[in-house]
Amino acid sequence: MAEIKIPDLEQKALELLRADADKIFKLIDVQMENLTMPQCPLYEEVLDTQMFGLSREVEFAVRLGLIEEEIGREIMGSLERKLADLHELYNQNN
Amino acid sequence: MAEIKIPDLEQKALELLRADADKIFKLIDVQMENLTMPQCPLYEEVLDTQMFGLSREVEFAVRLGLIEEEIGREIMGSLERKLADLHELYNQNN
Repeated sequence: MAEIKIPDLEQKALELLRADADKIFKLIDVQMENLTMPQCPLYEEVLDTQMFGLSREVEFAVRLGLIEEEIGREIMGSLERKLADLHELYNQNN
Repeated sequence: MAEIKIPDLEQKALELLRADADKIFKLIDVQMENLTMPQCPLYEEVLDTQMFGLSREVEFAVRLGLIEEEIGREIMGSLERKLADLHELYNQNN
């Protein structure tokens, strides 16, 4: 059996966080596509919950020393910018 | 500088998760002590949010292979039982 090493774990932590961030990106994309449909609510609560969950994972990885704080901020920051785009789009449509 | 090893990281992950679980235990204790006071709401939403956050940390640690799934279930399970005690106490008082 191959020995697990710290760099592998750092890589895996980053991959997991990016995969989870990507799921939220896709959720936001779905929301953006559905904005023009009538009766289609912004699933803000779902998105907020998912963002919170991811932020806890990111923090946990930082506390374990598996990812740099700066990388964590970038992951969350890119999602926050995407969410801001969604809100802007929503405001233009309502 | 001391080299970080996988067993250290497993130990650290477990300590972080237990520390976070302990914070929620304390939140529940505070709620239990305040149940008899008038106008003191059950901070269910706060507790739910904290439980969700911890569950995401636990899952993340399991996905990284740092803790066993069974240990993760024990951590969440002990909190869920404590929460059930709180609800029972609340129902007796209302």
